This record gives sequence, structure tokens and C-alpha cells, in this order.
Amino acid sequence: MSLNSFGHLFRVTTWGESHGPALGATVDGCPPNVPVDEEALQLWLDRRKPGQNKYTTQRREADAVRILSGVFEGRTTGTPVQLMIENTDQRSKDYSEIAEKFRPGHADITYWQKYGIRDYRGGGRSSARETAARVAAGGLARAALSQLAPGLAVQGSMVQMGPRAIDRDNFDSDQIGQNPFWCPDATAAADWADYLDQLRKSGDSVGAVIEVRASGVPAGLGAPIYGKLDTDLAAAMMSINAVKGVEIGEGMAAAALRGSENADEITMGPDGHPEYSSNHAGGILGGISTGQEIVLRFAVKPTSSILTSRRTITKAGEETEIVTKGRHDPCVGIRAVPVGEAMMACVLLDHLLLHRGQVGDTGGRIGPAD
Amino acid sequence: MSLNSFGHLFRVTTWGESHGPALGATVDGCPPNVPVDEEALQLWLDRRKPGQNKYTTQRREADAVRILSGVFEGRTTGTPVQLMIENTDQRSKDYSEIAEKFRPGHADITYWQKYGIRDYRGGGRSSARETAARVAAGGLARAALSQLAPGLAVQGSMVQMGPRAIDRDNFDSDQIGQNPFWCPDATAAADWADYLDQLRKSGDSVGAVIEVRASGVPAGLGAPIYGKLDTDLAAAMMSINAVKGVEIGEGMAAAALRGSENADEITMGPDGHPEYSSNHAGGILGGISTGQEIVLRFAVKPTSSILTSRRTITKAGEETEIVTKGRHDPCVGIRAVPVGEAMMACVLLDHLLLHRGQVGDTGGRIGPAD
Amino acid sequence: MSLNSFGHLFRVTTWGESHGPALGATVDGCPPNVPVDEEALQLWLDRRKPGQNKYTTQRREADAVRILSGVFEGRTTGTPVQLMIENTDQRSKDYSEIAEKFRPGHADITYWQKYGIRDYRGGGRSSARETAARVAAGGLARAALSQLAPGLAVQGSMVQMGPRAIDRDNFDSDQIGQNPFWCPDATAAADWADYLDQLRKSGDSVGAVIEVRASGVPAGLGAPIYGKLDTDLAAAMMSINAVKGVEIGEGMAAAALRGSENADEITMGPDGHPEYSSNHAGGILGGISTGQEIVLRFAVKPTSSILTSRRTITKAGEETEIVTKGRHDPCVGIRAVPVGEAMMACVLLDHLLLHRGQVGDTGGRIGPAD
Amino acid sequence: MSLNSFGHLFRVTTWGESHGPALGATVDGCPPNVPVDEEALQLWLDRRKPGQNKYTTQRREADAVRILSGVFEGRTTGTPVQLMIENTDQRSKDYSEIAEKFRPGHADITYWQKYGIRDYRGGGRSSARETAARVAAGGLARAALSQLAPGLAVQGSMVQMGPRAIDRDNFDSDQIGQNPFWCPDATAAADWADYLDQLRKSGDSVGAVIEVRASGVPAGLGAPIYGKLDTDLAAAMMSINAVKGVEIGEGMAAAALRGSENADEITMGPDGHPEYSSNHAGGILGGISTGQEIVLRFAVKPTSSILTSRRTITKAGEETEIVTKGRHDPCVGIRAVPVGEAMMACVLLDHLLLHRGQVGDTGGRIGPAD
Repeated sequence: MSLNSFGHLFRVTTWGESHGPALGATVDGCPPNVPVDEEALQLWLDRRKPGQNKYTTQRREADAVRILSGVFEGRTTGTPVQLMIENTDQRSKDYSEIAEKFRPGHADITYWQKYGIRDYRGGGRSSARETAARVAAGGLARAALSQLAPGLAVQGSMVQMGPRAIDRDNFDSDQIGQNPFWCPDATAAADWADYLDQLRKSGDSVGAVIEVRASGVPAGLGAPIYGKLDTDLAAAMMSINAVKGVEIGEGMAAAALRGSENADEITMGPDGHPEYSSNHAGGILGGISTGQEIVLRFAVKPTSSILTSRRTITKAGEETEIVTKGRHDPCVGIRAVPVGEAMMACVLLDHLLLHRGQVGDTGGRIGPAD
Repeated sequence: MSLNSFGHLFRVTTWGESHGPALGATVDGCPPNVPVDEEALQLWLDRRKPGQNKYTTQRREADAVRILSGVFEGRTTGTPVQLMIENTDQRSKDYSEIAEKFRPGHADITYWQKYGIRDYRGGGRSSARETAARVAAGGLARAALSQLAPGLAVQGSMVQMGPRAIDRDNFDSDQIGQNPFWCPDATAAADWADYLDQLRKSGDSVGAVIEVRASGVPAGLGAPIYGKLDTDLAAAMMSINAVKGVEIGEGMAAAALRGSENADEITMGPDGHPEYSSNHAGGILGGISTGQEIVLRFAVKPTSSILTSRRTITKAGEETEIVTKGRHDPCVGIRAVPVGEAMMACVLLDHLLLHRGQVGDTGGRIGPAD
Repeated sequence: MSLNSFGHLFRVTTWGESHGPALGATVDGCPPNVPVDEEALQLWLDRRKPGQNKYTTQRREADAVRILSGVFEGRTTGTPVQLMIENTDQRSKDYSEIAEKFRPGHADITYWQKYGIRDYRGGGRSSARETAARVAAGGLARAALSQLAPGLAVQGSMVQMGPRAIDRDNFDSDQIGQNPFWCPDATAAADWADYLDQLRKSGDSVGAVIEVRASGVPAGLGAPIYGKLDTDLAAAMMSINAVKGVEIGEGMAAAALRGSENADEITMGPDGHPEYSSNHAGGILGGISTGQEIVLRFAVKPTSSILTSRRTITKAGEETEIVTKGRHDPCVGIRAVPVGEAMMACVLLDHLLLHRGQVGDTGGRIGPAD
Repeated sequence: MSLNSFGHLFRVTTWGESHGPALGATVDGCPPNVPVDEEALQLWLDRRKPGQNKYTTQRREADAVRILSGVFEGRTTGTPVQLMIENTDQRSKDYSEIAEKFRPGHADITYWQKYGIRDYRGGGRSSARETAARVAAGGLARAALSQLAPGLAVQGSMVQMGPRAIDRDNFDSDQIGQNPFWCPDATAAADWADYLDQLRKSGDSVGAVIEVRASGVPAGLGAPIYGKLDTDLAAAMMSINAVKGVEIGEGMAAAALRGSENADEITMGPDGHPEYSSNHAGGILGGISTGQEIVLRFAVKPTSSILTSRRTITKAGEETEIVTKGRHDPCVGIRAVPVGEAMMACVLLDHLLLHRGQVGDTGGRIGPAD
């Protein structure tokens, strides 16, 4: 990871500001001959797109992705893929207030302190719009994964909104696409609808916990000690705007467990693949995938753009107050679900390629030597 | 981060196995003219060293660090610094059992599945001994920081052992060095002593939560979007053995907050430095330091090396059981405290250099333009 | 350098194919507050643009660069700068022959062997059009350099066309802009005009040697051992299409010299800056700049697209012949001059930032300690 | 490449100074299960070792390499391999003169200007001793290549000493090991022996041209545009001390050729492998290997350590003179032959792994689609 790039071999650099002409992702190192087109990527972008229901910002962006390079006659060529999304909804809004005042909880002040200049329109580079580029890159990663690891599936869901967590006994992955919250618990989803309605009307916002799972991941992905699969996943998720915590498997709760409770026992499964009595590890041991489901969660803080007046300062150093008006999400965590999925897909593809590069296709089977 | 390296400009590559001739850290990109010698680094290593009290493994390693390059007449030269720690306590132990069986919760099985070969002696590369190299590198980073950012201080502590968290009202940083647990709460420390005694006798182990704080960090460190300071910190901590979760500021608890509670209000402080009404953000906004204290926590899972018999398989694919004997820590989290500090120091130095490279020394002050 | 990127801190990734919708450069790590706009970059691109005289390909591309991100109100913001050039002259040409046959001396066959797919239209990714993105990035680098190192100047020239080298006694840098060959020797330029006319009429092509010089480079840029300034310059130049050799200072001719001839003697100049009796080293010793003029040369092979029939094979493996028709340069080295300048500017800026990051602004002065 | 590392997946970081306790190479990303031991690596080091005959420096170093990590029971484990060479011949020489004066043609002055500190003993980091670490890493690369690309062979030779080039008609690779100069032309070798004897007696030194060839390289290695195989080879060679020029295939002479002479015609060979009428390209087209022999040359400047008095300055800025006494090579190019081979081996292995990572094992065959 460096500045605006992530990934080792499948390397994604995102660029662009919220209210500039366009934003996008430059993707280097994609395997060749992967079938992909704009329509396939658009499906993923449409899941993240704002303005789809009353729970997300009413900013209406087409978020139409264009492939400018690296794809020929419907297949990747192995050269860099440029994915561009034009910013069509650049309203000629009055930005004079946020040009002068720093919004609390936003990156306004830190960009200013770091660079001595900032594109203040809509948050500029720190806008959640940047995540559209991640989702486009994630769509490309999924296309490559479907060739290289056909059984691999990535699915995200929201498992907590504000203080209201799902009931794990109700977890049903078929429910995830059935409600506007990507919630796997139908009862919780109904409850959240009322809760978020009230929040929105009060001009406040709330955080969330997102869970992303990947099944069908081959054993053996990851590398000691700093190129660990969990290291790269933690970095990928923490790099998403507003994320303040990342957990693998038991996560922070692992601290409270005893060794006798935590270590997953191993038995022998079919075809040389081991099986485990449980998955406290979240599918990763020593930084390397076990072949179990990979399970991670991340916490998104509440949007700082709220209608309550807050104390702040101006760029001239004067104390003042600010109310952040405009089109904002009461729970930005909703739109973080497809973003988390995209980051998971990118990281897994990258580690598949890294493993193939260093080790080749060994398969990870256990059993009598040939 | 790639495979066994971390950092952008201050780049650390660790190498070595638990029972090989030596292990160490190759540190590239250190600023020149930093005063440092083996004695200074040894102080940090001695904090991490096992065998210091009954709560840590009784393996006795001198853990003596040698500087093989990059330091001349007591100062760094700007060329790579090689820090080597010889493995002196390589008991001619019988490793025949763990050569054949995979210990549940360990990296044994995943290394085997990935590489088809593993140095099984004492965990090899996945041993906690690797963290000695991080601590040595962290000592070097601290030496450089004391020149470049004189007021900067990094301090770690253990804030939860198993299910027993400290009382935040008792937090006293002066207590941290006064007990074997780096615990900032004297009452909790006394309680933990009894608790861990019992655990140790029962042959079990327990997890922990470590908190690392850095004060005196200049505003403006970090970079959008993937070179964020919190991204690199999350990666650094998640790369430590047995870590399963990382949090910045409010961390996972941010999910339960409302926007009106979470955003830290800004006022004007002395000398152009803003002040904040609170620090929910943990000192980082938009991936860039605010100048407030940086606060992070990470969870360490319980050691998987326990005396309870567990089901597992052999490398030939046969089901069996294993009891992990030997010298192990009932709460490996204790020794993770200096390791977390070292990683924090390395990441902060790296971002100081990155910032100086891209932007120069701007100072981050806010106020009327000159 | 990795796949399609170069640079450490000032990091350029180019993307795009000759006949796709667009190509460009994603530039990460540019210092903030650098004044730049599309007009400033266009000046450099216009120097490289084909179709300007009868000696370069008659393909007419507007080569208009657009800044899509990273610049706000005429200044860089420190975030990624996306520079896009749309491909406007995509004639609906008949590509059926080169879709099937590999042109000798071209990358057609190796791309096919590597990837199993290639965008054959106009050379695709391997087209000389890719260098337009380098020139755009180089323009940005020059803008930053004019702030950070005001006296630094980069100038390229052609010093040999085919077997005809300039007379060094005639070297006059004021001549460089006065002829279509960037030739510093007016007599040679006149001779080359006739020579190239004949070549063009005969349907053949010829190689060239380009020299790039940088004056006003501070002492101290570069780093042992693999981040040497000459290492990065050699890589930068060798990465240009059709380049087959790179030299620093005496270059290949250094082999024939004696130590007593080659080592530049040192004397003391004004303001703590050393001076040298000669510049055999080309301004670099031990991979680090001396403060003298940096002098490098690179050789460009003759264009392989010629009207002579050549033996080749089809992608089905059948032997055949090919005549490469179309719009091509008889001496592609002409357009390599601004490309070499651009690469020099990028590498020097990158090393300025690297030096500032690791060491700070030390100045490189020699004299009594303060 | 960054500071002291090179390579993408097979990543080598060298460390150490001439007169410190040790130097070495930290090698990350080596494939697992490669048979290797210290004896195998020592064979390569012994080829580079000084003091073997009267034509190389009489400094006597054992240059014994130790493997400190990453190899278990005679095979690589996939974790970092630490290769250490202790400096045994650290004579307690009087360094007071070169501590104060900068030797012309050496890195003394630039290290001082850059860092404000330097290990002046024997050149410190800039000593040719650093290349021992490259040769050790190259030995490891060769071991891996012998598994992954069994027919691949790398061989270097010296083709020019001072102004005296070999006669290409006498080129006989069997001669290379038969004389102290790695010269493929027996007649030239005899001539050089006399020539160098005279030079040595006169206290002077001379440059050389080294040629390195690799046969059996699969087609398809390399990547557009900056990860080109020739880009990485040029960087690798230019990073060797004293190298001032690098050429691929025709190299600088390509400038003088016509397109009709230069492009290698293609015919069909056995088993889907194309053949070429000639190899002007040196085995690389568009940055990707063709399957032909890779041919490169680099020029080594004459050693600057000579017995002739030269003008220079002191670190206090005073003008003076210096005679460099001590143990030095009249033609350091001799010892550059095994170094060039080592760099070639490292780069080829790296690109084999990169190709396998991105593309898999496709084989590069041409012919009717299956």
C-alpha cells in the first residue's frame, strides 16, 4: 500500500475528487483473457449507488463506469485497465461556507493542515464517492476470481445498525438482498427501517457494523509476516472512509476467550481437505487461509454531516459554528456493504496471484506423499 | 507491505525462524546521523524478553541485539541497518511429535498447505520470537523520532486480560511500568495476578486487549486513500502474531454512536494548533493525524499452546490428538505490549518521512495567511 | 518499478492503448500547491506530437491532455493527478492483416506469447503513443521542479542519426529548437534533412542517439545501492519503446579509459560547492548526484515498420511475409527527445522528494563545520 | 527498486559495509522446496572472490557465506533467506587520510554531501565488496531457476579490456573458464595478460565491457511498460558499482542500423516455438522475452583507486592532493563478470515468478488453437 494504491500484483490506484470531472481506478496486473465488460461492472456499481431509496443520500449520480483501456473484444489483455466514472451531478451549489469552515469529524481540517490546499467541494478526495472506484475495481476482481477460483463467493451484510445488532440465530443469507440494509435478519431489518426513519427526521446519523464473508477460498493464501492475508484485509477495510475498527473471526472478543475455547480442532475431510470443529480463527491461521470461510467485520462511524449545529474553526483560525446541510446518508454503513465486498474480492485475487507466483498451483491438499 | 516487509520509506524486513541460527530486521531508509547503539536498542528488547517473571514463557533467551551495518561511530549512516539476534537457547528438544502433527490454532497446517515444507521447530517463522526483530527496529525508529519529533511519545498498556477489563477511571500511565502486565490500573493488576496464576496452573491460556497511545504527533501525517495513517497502523498491528482485531479511537463501538455524539468539536488553541472537545476519532481524520493523541487497541487471542488434549490430524492426513507441552505464555498479550509500541513507532516515523518527502516541513498551523 | 508504474514517491502509472478510447497517466505523490494547468502541460505534448513535419508520422492526433483530478483552482492538491489524452484519430482502418501476422521487430509476437490475447490495432499498448502519457507526466514533474529546484533545467537533443553523429565542436544548445531534429549542430541538421528524405522515400528507417542533460541538479540525489540515481535513470530510459542502450557520462566508452584519465579531479568552488576538472562521471558518483551536469544518452533502434517485405509467421503458426504499410516515422528517435526529457524530469523530482523524505534539506555544502 | 532492494517477487535487499562486522542479502519471496545449501552458494562466491590471482586485489577475504534463515533440512521454506558474509579481513589500517580527503572518482564526496556522515573505511557501503551479497543471492536464484526453468543457463564473459576488444570470430564459450579474465577469446586473453601486467606495474587501471547471455529463457517474460524485462535488466546492471552503460542486443550500435537491417525475421520452429533469422533484439521485443538468447553488455569504468597523485578537497573544504594506496584491482571488470551473471539470474527468476503470478504457465507456444 502506498498513498493511493493497494495490492501487490493486482494493484489498484484510485484517483479523483467528488466534484471534479471524473474519478476512477487504474488497475494494473489483472490476468489476461478475463471476460468483462461495462455492463458486468455496472451491476456492482448499481448496488452502491446513492439515491436508491430514502435511506441513502438523494444525490443522483448515474455512476456509469467506462472501461478506457486494458479490455479488447470483451476480454482483459493483461495491460492496465482504466475504469472511469464521470461526475455528472456537479450542482453549482454554494460552497462558500465549507470553503472557510472545517466540518467536525470530517477530513477538511487534516487535508488543510497537511497540504495547505483542499478541494472543499463535497469533501473532494475524502468523499465517499471515492468508493465507487473501489467497487468498479472489485467487479473486475470478481470477474477474474470466477475464472481462477470458480467456487469462491464473497458476500457482505450489515449486522449492526447503531446499537441494534442482528440476532445471529436469524442469520439467513437469502435475506441479504431482500431489504435496503443488506441485513441477513428479516426481523432486524424491519426494526431498522423504523429506527432509521426517526434518525433521519431528527437530522442525526448512526454507525454500523458490516460483516464480509468469503467461501470457497483455497487454503494457502497469504504470506508471513507482513503480507499476511489478514494484514492486507485489515488494511483494505480500514482504508474505507469512516471505518474505525476491523475484526477477523472472533475479533476483539478473542481477548475474552481461553485457549481451550478458541483453537479450532482439526479433522480430516474429503479429497485431502481438512475440516474444523469451529471457525474462531475466521478462516486464517498465521496469516494464511485455512480453506474455511473467511469472516471479517468492520465498524463504520456515524456520518459527521448532520443538521445539529457544532462548534468549529475557520481556516483563518477563528472560532465559529457550522450546520452541515445537504444530501447525506443517515447511515453511510449501508453503502459500505458493497464496498467491503469489493475490497475483499481485490485482496483475495491479489493473494491468489501472489501465491501462484511464489509457489505455483499446489492445491493445499493434505495426505500421504505421492 | 509485501511478504516480509512493511513501511514505505522507513522500510523494515524481518527474517529468521525461532530455532535457526539467528533472526533479525533489515531496516532500510533510516535517516542519517541518528545516535544509536546496541545498548539503546537492548533496553527495548529487554522489555519484551521472555523468562522475566512467572507470567511469561520460561524460555531464556539472551535476546542480545547486534548492529551489523548502517551505524558508524554511534550514528546511523543512512544505509541499511542490519539488526541481528542470535538464537542461543536452541535446546535439542524432541520435535518429532510436532513434526508430524499440526497444533490446532497454530500456523503449522497453513504453512504446510502453502509451501509443502515447514520448519516445525518451535513454530519456525510463525513463532512469537519474530517480534523481537520488530522491537529492535522499533528502538531504532524511536531514536530517529526523538530527533525529528522531540515531543513525540509512544506508550502501550494492557487494558483487558481475558474478560477482565480495567476501570478507565483508574487509568494512570505511571502505573504501567509498575506491574508485570503493563497495566495502567493498579487494582486490575492485582486482580490479574491471581487470575493468571490460576490459569497457568490449569494449563490454559487467555487473550488480551492492548492499547497503544502516541502523544506529540504532528498534525498532517498520513495520506489518502490507501496510505492512510490508520490503514498502516491497522496493518502493522494485525501483522503481529495472534492479533484478531484492531480499533482506532472509538473503534468497533463507533457503530453504536450517533453523529451528534461522535464528531469531535474544534476550537482554537495556542500557536495555531486547533484543539478538540473530545477524541472519538483517536487522533486521525480522513487518514491524517489531527495533532491529538493517537489511540488504538488490538486484541490478542489466547495462546493455542495449551496442556489440554485437542483433536488434530497428521501431515499424512490421519486423525489424532495432541497436547502442546513446552514453555509457553499463559497470556501472550503481555509481551505484545512492547511489540505494539514498536510497530506504532515504526509507522509514525515512516509517515513523518513520507510527509517530509511529499510536502516538506509545513507545520500544520492554522491561522491568518502570512 | 512494477509492471506499468515507475517512481518511488512521485509515482507514475501509464495506461491505455493506441486505438482505445483514451490513454493517460495516473500520477500519485505530487507535492501540493504546484501551479499547473492543461495549457502548461499541452506545451510539452505539442513538442512530441506527430504530424508536425514531413519527418514524423502523418497520423494527426490532437493529443489534447485533460486534467481529471488532483488540481484545484490551478494548483495541485497533493492527491492523484489523472492526465487523460483521448484517441481522436482512430481511423476505421483494416487491421485484418496485422491481426493475423506478427510484424518482425515489433512486440506483436511477444504480447501474444505472453498473454494469449493482444489489441493488435496500431500496436495497442506497445505503440509509441504511450509516450504521450509520459510527456504529460513529465510536464507535471517540471512544474514541481520549478518550485523545488528553481535553477534546474532539463534539455534533450539528438546527437546521432543513423551512422551520422554530430560534431561535438559544433554543439550549441541554442540550435536545438531551430530544426526539426532537436539537433544541437546546425551543419549536421542540414545534412540529416537530406539523409532522412532519401530514407523516407526508400521506405526504410534509421536509428538515433538521444542525449539528455540536466543542469542545476543539487548534489546528494540518489541512494545506495539499488535506488541509485543512475539506476533509476537507466531504467526510465530503457523503458521507452525501441531503446536498446543507455549511457551515463562516458558510458560504454568508459571501458577504454585508464583510471588516470577517467577520475574527475575535485577543487573547491564558491559557497561550499565543489567543482570538477571534467565530467567523465556524467554528474553521478556512487549513484548520487555530484552537482555537476547530469549527462546521459540512449540509443533508439530504427522503426521496424518499413515498406520492405519481411518473412514472418501468423498466429496460427504458418510462415508468410508482411509489408508494414501505414503512417510511420522514418526516424522515431526524433520524437524520443521530449520523451527522454520527460523521464529525466520525473526521475529527478522523485529523487528530490526521496532525499527530502530521508534526509531533509541539507544542501550538500562542504566546508568547515558550523 | 527502492533504496537498497531490487526485484518484485524475488526481492533482494543487500546490507553492510566493507569494514563492518558483516554484509549480506535478505532475500524475500524465494519459492519453497528449492534444494540449496551453503556449499552450493559458496561455489559462486568463490568465482568473485578477490585475491585469486595477481590481476585482482590482494585483499584476502574468506567470503564464506552463511545461511541464517529460510532454509530447513536443505530446502528453502518460502520464508526470507538471510545470507551473511562476515568481514574477516578488517586490517587495522590507517584510515586517517581518506577520513579527511575525498578520493576522485569515488562515492566518498557524494555520500558525505548527501548524508553528512560516511563510513570511510574501505569505501563503506560503496565498496565493491557489496557485490558479494549479490553473488550469494544470485546463487540462490540459480538454484530456483534450475527447478523452474531447467534448460536455462546464464553465462558472463569479458569482451573488452580497456580499448582491446575480443575478435568475435574467436568467441568460444568453452574458453571462458580457462583464463583469469573470463575471456571467450584465447588470443585476446593472452594479449590481456601482458597488457594488464604493464598497467598494474604503472599503478594505473583500466575499464572493461562485460557480456552476459542467458539461453533457454522461455518466451513471455517481462511486462509493459515499466516492468519490462530489459528495463529491469538495465537497472540491475547499472546498479553495480562502476557501471556506466548498459546495452541489450545491438545496443548503442542499433542507432546506426536501418530498419531493413535490424528487424529479425520470424520463421516457425519445432513444437510451436518461433525461430528468428538473427538476434539484433537481444532476445527481447516490447520488453518481453522472445525465447531467443538474451544478450546484454555493460561497461565498467576503470578503478579510481590509482597510484597517481590527483587533486581533491578535504571535508573541511580545503584543496589538497591524494594518492590512493592499498589493495586494488587494476581491472575491476574481471570481478564484475560473476556479479553480472548473478544479477541476470535474479532478474530472470523474478520475472518467471511475476509471469506465473499474473498469467500462469502458458508456455508461449504458437500454432493452431486447440
